[in-house]
Amino acid sequence: MPKENKLIERLADIGEKEILNRLQKYMDIGQIDDDTALIRNYSAKDLIINTDLLVEDVHFNEQTLSPKETGWKSVAVNLSDLACSGVEEILGITVGLVVPSSTPWSWVEDAYSGINNALETFGGKLLGGDCSHGKQRMLSITAIGTKGPLDLHRSNARPGDHLVTSGNHGLSRLGLGFLLSDPLIRNIKINESLKKNAIQAHKKPTPPLKALSQLLRCKPYKIPLRAAATDSSDGLLEAINCICKSSNCSAIIDIKNLPMHSQWPKGDAWINWCLEGGEDFELVVSLPPKWAKEWVNLIPQSKVIGKIEEGPPNAFWSTGKKINSSNLGTFKHF
Amino acid sequence: MPKENKLIERLADIGEKEILNRLQKYMDIGQIDDDTALIRNYSAKDLIINTDLLVEDVHFNEQTLSPKETGWKSVAVNLSDLACSGVEEILGITVGLVVPSSTPWSWVEDAYSGINNALETFGGKLLGGDCSHGKQRMLSITAIGTKGPLDLHRSNARPGDHLVTSGNHGLSRLGLGFLLSDPLIRNIKINESLKKNAIQAHKKPTPPLKALSQLLRCKPYKIPLRAAATDSSDGLLEAINCICKSSNCSAIIDIKNLPMHSQWPKGDAWINWCLEGGEDFELVVSLPPKWAKEWVNLIPQSKVIGKIEEGPPNAFWSTGKKINSSNLGTFKHF
Repeated sequence: MPKENKLIERLADIGEKEILNRLQKYMDIGQIDDDTALIRNYSAKDLIINTDLLVEDVHFNEQTLSPKETGWKSVAVNLSDLACSGVEEILGITVGLVVPSSTPWSWVEDAYSGINNALETFGGKLLGGDCSHGKQRMLSITAIGTKGPLDLHRSNARPGDHLVTSGNHGLSRLGLGFLLSDPLIRNIKINESLKKNAIQAHKKPTPPLKALSQLLRCKPYKIPLRAAATDSSDGLLEAINCICKSSNCSAIIDIKNLPMHSQWPKGDAWINWCLEGGEDFELVVSLPPKWAKEWVNLIPQSKVIGKIEEGPPNAFWSTGKKINSSNLGTFKHF
Repeated sequence: MPKENKLIERLADIGEKEILNRLQKYMDIGQIDDDTALIRNYSAKDLIINTDLLVEDVHFNEQTLSPKETGWKSVAVNLSDLACSGVEEILGITVGLVVPSSTPWSWVEDAYSGINNALETFGGKLLGGDCSHGKQRMLSITAIGTKGPLDLHRSNARPGDHLVTSGNHGLSRLGLGFLLSDPLIRNIKINESLKKNAIQAHKKPTPPLKALSQLLRCKPYKIPLRAAATDSSDGLLEAINCICKSSNCSAIIDIKNLPMHSQWPKGDAWINWCLEGGEDFELVVSLPPKWAKEWVNLIPQSKVIGKIEEGPPNAFWSTGKKINSSNLGTFKHF
């Protein structure tokens, strides 16, 4: 009974100053006291920076993500972008938080606890930020890190490369399907472990930082440090097409080697979810075959899904047929 | 007539890819192509970073700011924070933009043109960002710069210091008053040039970067490089109290030396607007008297408004009376 009787503290009752006071424990020391955060630059390395938004009812809602998961995911999606740009050390993040005044304090605290959890897991400090009330919940995260030796420009693919993914695709979309009771999965039997993986992939994604460090470590000695990469946050097909467009070459994809879970159901709709489900935070990398072989040996879920050839900047099946978007539109940002 | 007949292009009709394509001209080269932006680190200097939000109906609306002014101001408020932390060179910004799908394309283009204008004026590149639809317009800007030799911590004030402001206060609040037809100004005659200044201060504020570089340049040779500073974005009184709290000392303010425009009307309400109007992007600095004198000589609008003494961490009038907040609440963020 005490739980139900406990007054729900809403942000409007607490006020901005007290909100900032309460968030202080999550901050890097001294970051609330001054207007900006200081990043000590011991290394003199180049930096990479990225901003990503998570907007309620666009990227998440109460059905799909808990406040803690929202915080975690807002960091993870950013770090995924840093990973596919070859980050070496994650320095930290800033948080722009918009929430309606009626939001309970516990929502904010839980979101920050999820943010904190992700930073403890992957590295980096909370370097400050800003908060305001607004009509819907929104997190704008900017992540900053040092750049390592890999130059992973999307334009770095070359004919002769293999195309490799660091993990399975479509899982996050399947997880979302479970959370929203999608008609596609209503009459199909899904293995329990696949279901668990899928929901985890949607709620608590892992940025491919380990895969990135293995990519660097396993490079054969005599091969130049040249590879193209992106993450598959907007879907696998979109990632491949981005590399093709930026590098002006064709990707030839082997339908038998699509990066799907071993228990993944059969059928076109399921291939579409693999290709365009989106929010798969895996690396999609174009690199020389010898290097690709070493990398695939290191990562259990990775797979050579095809190769890069001279030709129009699109993805094609091995049959020569262009892989067209099904316009699944999982993530329609506008 | 052609103007009225022109179809209004809305974001929902354009789609995310085309929106990003169109914004490319504003971006630093290559920033759309890859997921993150690269910041070359030539100098190995420490960095300062800051995030600020501008939310529609909280910080701006159609009555108060045009889209161009919204873009400009979103950058200016961030650079003001970098200025009061002693920035040397502004490296760039990222932009998180949320807009309803029904927003006309021209709004986005104008906002980016305002952002671009501010960067051209004050320095720094557009380093990329993210955009999404949402219920209300929102700009989340993260600005990053190198730190110069000044250590402007709020906790650096010392008894014996003078308290100096780089410019007049209350102007932005008066400008907002004109834009929203505030009752306070209905029956009072305001000088035309003051009115113009005030509206400009609200719509197109200038971050105090020049005042900052003069502060460094004018330091007398034998005085250590020690000063406390903040900007007055949350109001003058709040800025003074922040310095007092962080430095654990009292500020004694001379009511005759409040930093008000020469034509500023008389009365308690007007003193309150000077003290708590907010969005005055001026430096409030606590520093040794000799240094203060040099600085005031350089900047026409600057003024010694009081001094720092040992005592409880609050602002007091010279009479010994504590300066209490009128709870004007110009900017209630929650």
